[in-house]
Amino acid sequence: MENLNKVVELSYALDTFYFLICGALVMWMGAGFAMLEAGLVRAKNTTEILTKNIALFAIACTMYLLCGYGIMYPSEAVNSVWPGINFLIGPEHTLEEVLASNGETYYSGLSDFFFQVVFVATSMSIVSGAVAERMKLWAFLLFAVVMTGFIYPIQGYWKWGKGFLDALGFLDFAGSGVVHLCGATAAMAGVLLLGARKGKFGPNGEVYPIPGCNLPLATLGTFILWMGWFGFNGGSELKVSNVGEANSVAMVFVNTNAAAAGGLIAALLVSQLKFGKADLSMVLNGALAGLVAITAEPLTPSPLAATLIGAVGGVLVVFAIIGMDKFKLDDPVGALSVHGVVGVWGLLAVCITNPEAKLSAQLIGIVTIFGFVFVTSLLTWYVIKLAIGIRVSEEDEYHGVDYSECGMEAYPEFTDTSKG
Amino acid sequence: MENLNKVVELSYALDTFYFLICGALVMWMGAGFAMLEAGLVRAKNTTEILTKNIALFAIACTMYLLCGYGIMYPSEAVNSVWPGINFLIGPEHTLEEVLASNGETYYSGLSDFFFQVVFVATSMSIVSGAVAERMKLWAFLLFAVVMTGFIYPIQGYWKWGKGFLDALGFLDFAGSGVVHLCGATAAMAGVLLLGARKGKFGPNGEVYPIPGCNLPLATLGTFILWMGWFGFNGGSELKVSNVGEANSVAMVFVNTNAAAAGGLIAALLVSQLKFGKADLSMVLNGALAGLVAITAEPLTPSPLAATLIGAVGGVLVVFAIIGMDKFKLDDPVGALSVHGVVGVWGLLAVCITNPEAKLSAQLIGIVTIFGFVFVTSLLTWYVIKLAIGIRVSEEDEYHGVDYSECGMEAYPEFTDTSKG
Amino acid sequence: MENLNKVVELSYALDTFYFLICGALVMWMGAGFAMLEAGLVRAKNTTEILTKNIALFAIACTMYLLCGYGIMYPSEAVNSVWPGINFLIGPEHTLEEVLASNGETYYSGLSDFFFQVVFVATSMSIVSGAVAERMKLWAFLLFAVVMTGFIYPIQGYWKWGKGFLDALGFLDFAGSGVVHLCGATAAMAGVLLLGARKGKFGPNGEVYPIPGCNLPLATLGTFILWMGWFGFNGGSELKVSNVGEANSVAMVFVNTNAAAAGGLIAALLVSQLKFGKADLSMVLNGALAGLVAITAEPLTPSPLAATLIGAVGGVLVVFAIIGMDKFKLDDPVGALSVHGVVGVWGLLAVCITNPEAKLSAQLIGIVTIFGFVFVTSLLTWYVIKLAIGIRVSEEDEYHGVDYSECGMEAYPEFTDTSKG
Repeated sequence: MENLNKVVELSYALDTFYFLICGALVMWMGAGFAMLEAGLVRAKNTTEILTKNIALFAIACTMYLLCGYGIMYPSEAVNSVWPGINFLIGPEHTLEEVLASNGETYYSGLSDFFFQVVFVATSMSIVSGAVAERMKLWAFLLFAVVMTGFIYPIQGYWKWGKGFLDALGFLDFAGSGVVHLCGATAAMAGVLLLGARKGKFGPNGEVYPIPGCNLPLATLGTFILWMGWFGFNGGSELKVSNVGEANSVAMVFVNTNAAAAGGLIAALLVSQLKFGKADLSMVLNGALAGLVAITAEPLTPSPLAATLIGAVGGVLVVFAIIGMDKFKLDDPVGALSVHGVVGVWGLLAVCITNPEAKLSAQLIGIVTIFGFVFVTSLLTWYVIKLAIGIRVSEEDEYHGVDYSECGMEAYPEFTDTSKG
Repeated sequence: MENLNKVVELSYALDTFYFLICGALVMWMGAGFAMLEAGLVRAKNTTEILTKNIALFAIACTMYLLCGYGIMYPSEAVNSVWPGINFLIGPEHTLEEVLASNGETYYSGLSDFFFQVVFVATSMSIVSGAVAERMKLWAFLLFAVVMTGFIYPIQGYWKWGKGFLDALGFLDFAGSGVVHLCGATAAMAGVLLLGARKGKFGPNGEVYPIPGCNLPLATLGTFILWMGWFGFNGGSELKVSNVGEANSVAMVFVNTNAAAAGGLIAALLVSQLKFGKADLSMVLNGALAGLVAITAEPLTPSPLAATLIGAVGGVLVVFAIIGMDKFKLDDPVGALSVHGVVGVWGLLAVCITNPEAKLSAQLIGIVTIFGFVFVTSLLTWYVIKLAIGIRVSEEDEYHGVDYSECGMEAYPEFTDTSKG
Repeated sequence: MENLNKVVELSYALDTFYFLICGALVMWMGAGFAMLEAGLVRAKNTTEILTKNIALFAIACTMYLLCGYGIMYPSEAVNSVWPGINFLIGPEHTLEEVLASNGETYYSGLSDFFFQVVFVATSMSIVSGAVAERMKLWAFLLFAVVMTGFIYPIQGYWKWGKGFLDALGFLDFAGSGVVHLCGATAAMAGVLLLGARKGKFGPNGEVYPIPGCNLPLATLGTFILWMGWFGFNGGSELKVSNVGEANSVAMVFVNTNAAAAGGLIAALLVSQLKFGKADLSMVLNGALAGLVAITAEPLTPSPLAATLIGAVGGVLVVFAIIGMDKFKLDDPVGALSVHGVVGVWGLLAVCITNPEAKLSAQLIGIVTIFGFVFVTSLLTWYVIKLAIGIRVSEEDEYHGVDYSECGMEAYPEFTDTSKG
């Protein structure tokens, strides 16, 4: 008996440790977004995008601690739509509880919080890229408070907190919808209200590319995200401590990697065929698209199927990025395409390999997340706009938001500031 | 019985693996310091700061192997003040020893060395930033030999090697004192002997800011340190393999993250209120201050308390950085404030949440570490100064230490070298 | 009995998780190579080297999935020289199989694939640096298809797939030969066919240094590789779940770190003595040389011996880099020296500490890998040359391959493009 208890304890320890390490990898994705976005904006807007990225991470962690986690996983939900609210984190599992639970309680509640909190930061990171180079810093940070404390947790509750989307059979393994589509939708509402950067679109529908200033950073960011995604998807299996679960976690790692590879290769080929060049920013977005595509279901596909699901994501993202420009949705880093369009693809692709998936449930999930996040985000952005404004002045945009918002240049010795 | 032994072995394996992974994360902090410091100095001094950072890591690993570890954890100590010395690492635990130990010997001795050796490198990394842009490379590296081989291990012995500070009840979970205050104190002795950079202070007490050349690198460095700190604090629980320990490790992860977030937000707000801008370098130092503040006691606070302990660190660091300038202590990266001032705060904050803490013991610990490290470091720097000099010539400082010390520029194509 | 089964399952889970985390660390080495190489080339060739590095990773993952893994580890080999071929990955271990295997089947087959697939990407990453700044993007990517799908797996089969080199007693713990010498040899064949960069060698044998454009990136890359190597060597123990294995993994971590430190210090001293300056690029290559040197046998040396084995690598690499220039082998990042010359040293050094090693077997292994990879690579490069050419035009080389191959600059705001 004592012996058995030791095995139960060891099991609990391994699953907790697995959760914490996967969480640390997801935290690392915050650095990935920061580098990706810093690499794809212009030098004069770099300090501000860095500030936004690291500050949103801190805000997400604090708001989710204060109330977000208690909304998404309430101790007692009001109903399947309205979660109710708890503040802070509930009590940790005791040894007695664990031993008595018959394997139900198999990892630390705090490790669960840690794993969840880095997900909300990921979702918020998606927003910063799309609204880059023209949004006021504090408008963005205020939005982060609302998004990470309320909007994300409510829709998260509907699926992962066992709300009505979960009851309907909506499937979203690690968050193509709950995390990526959610972030992209919030970003889209902001982009619509904010308008395009000066100089992006000509009066007759011309589209002028605005190249990113530091492609090694963008590439580094993509590698970081790729690595962090092993924690993002791999940890979402939630358990590793027996043969079946260990095999599943391994499958998720393999498929996550395969989909990223497939997305990259597809985007590389499409960009070579379409532009006659290997466009690195498309290649990077192709890898990320592959990752987003497989996130809703990284377990049931074979590795070959995962490669193909990722590859479809990689093709989609190139055309989506071109399409956004047609609709005059100015998204400096392609976040709407990568996380929104391909997030939808990922949710639909669940139906291909998971026999339990229902297309109707997936569609309801997509429409619900998009609708709810879009409306609440638009409202939030709008209130912020009325209160303090969301866009910097034309002059500040011309000189770069780094000066107006942060008072310092990112690369004071490398750029000729007289060029503006 | 055989079955029980297998459980003991598995437990040992999990704790060892946990130690090694946490150690790898701490090793990664070396990259964090390198990027942070390279981002906050000028382009012309970047190659040298990179060389210092990666070379000090190698020196720390080698010196700690040769004698540092054997001083800090001697097989038989002389007394509680003087540790004695062993060379290299003692024998590894055998299977028989582990099985016979009744759970006392629960992880590999080599994994302990690995975890410890990356801590001494961290402490030394703190020094390089404060003395940047004017110190000779080889003077710094010689100091690294003495610091990592002797100064750090001796004061480390007093606490973690079960010397007199430990006996007094001085509490320092993961090293706000043993690692961070120690590093900052050694740096301060160097800064005092070295003097300020040319152009930092005017003749009438004016303070001229010298902006860092690459803020994305500084931000990346902060993210790396944040991530690595999960290993730094998380691994310092020293065990994960049962329910109680797993819960503790999870608590440490959550609190470490919360404190960083609190420190960042506090520094962001203070800098906005004080300077009217969101000063990114303050924001980054705020996150690091939060991390240093929680390091002495990341286990007993609630996550909310951890956030507040970090936030106090974030406020402190802004005023400390301003204060250092008033005292004409020129510290290009703010290391004295982040690791020294906030390290002291962290050691005092233990008393708030840990009922076993005694303010007197904490104060004795602070005074002892500061006093010992300051005197021995000053002496060491002074001997090096007499022997080979510690400061580059005025001309070399003007042209940048990259040429004089390393013979190569960090960014030969981005900067106009004719500007000097 | 049920209890015992739970222990077996837990053991399987721990070993699988260990494999996956080590694999993620090796995947991270892809970012390390990308940053190292991007830092050591000129700004005008940076986008292309980034594209090559991330695209080769995707190609390696896909080709190894399609057939590489099934060649290297065939379900039924034809004979000890010719492996035969399987496509995709075989079936995963079932619970019944694991329980019945008496400990033989102790980790997930998919986790094995994941760990192996990142190794082939590492080997291919070595190639990109050596042929940088003048090779056509698509020629390189085509070579990557052949290398990762066929050349690497066949020679890998000979050792790790239990082919004739393994039968001969050739020892190569984590791949100084199978991975590093293999990559360097393929690179050398390419370099020979490709020729030197314009301006590297004068008509009378002069050697003109071409400085890298971004040394912080190169340093970051080295830190990443150093960190990733804990997974590379540490995971190659293949098991962690009992006392003996946990001790071995810890020893591998310690020795890997010690060898890197030794290599760095040796290269630092040699470069100071030889050039009168601490040449950072030599220092970085010294650390990498230490890592390559210990990779063939990181288990049997003591940490002090590991430091010395690494140090010999660090000395060797400085002279090898100088020697390559003498032979007019133009290798922008020193990959031939680090991975080729020091790879051979690592394979020979096995004989110093491992009593089971036979010098003859090591020599046969070296000659076999070099011979096979050289001939097949040369042939492959040659066919590609005939088909589409491998070198960009002189004009494209002058303006930078970023324009001709990728259509975009890496740093559009930092460099004066009129300078060419």
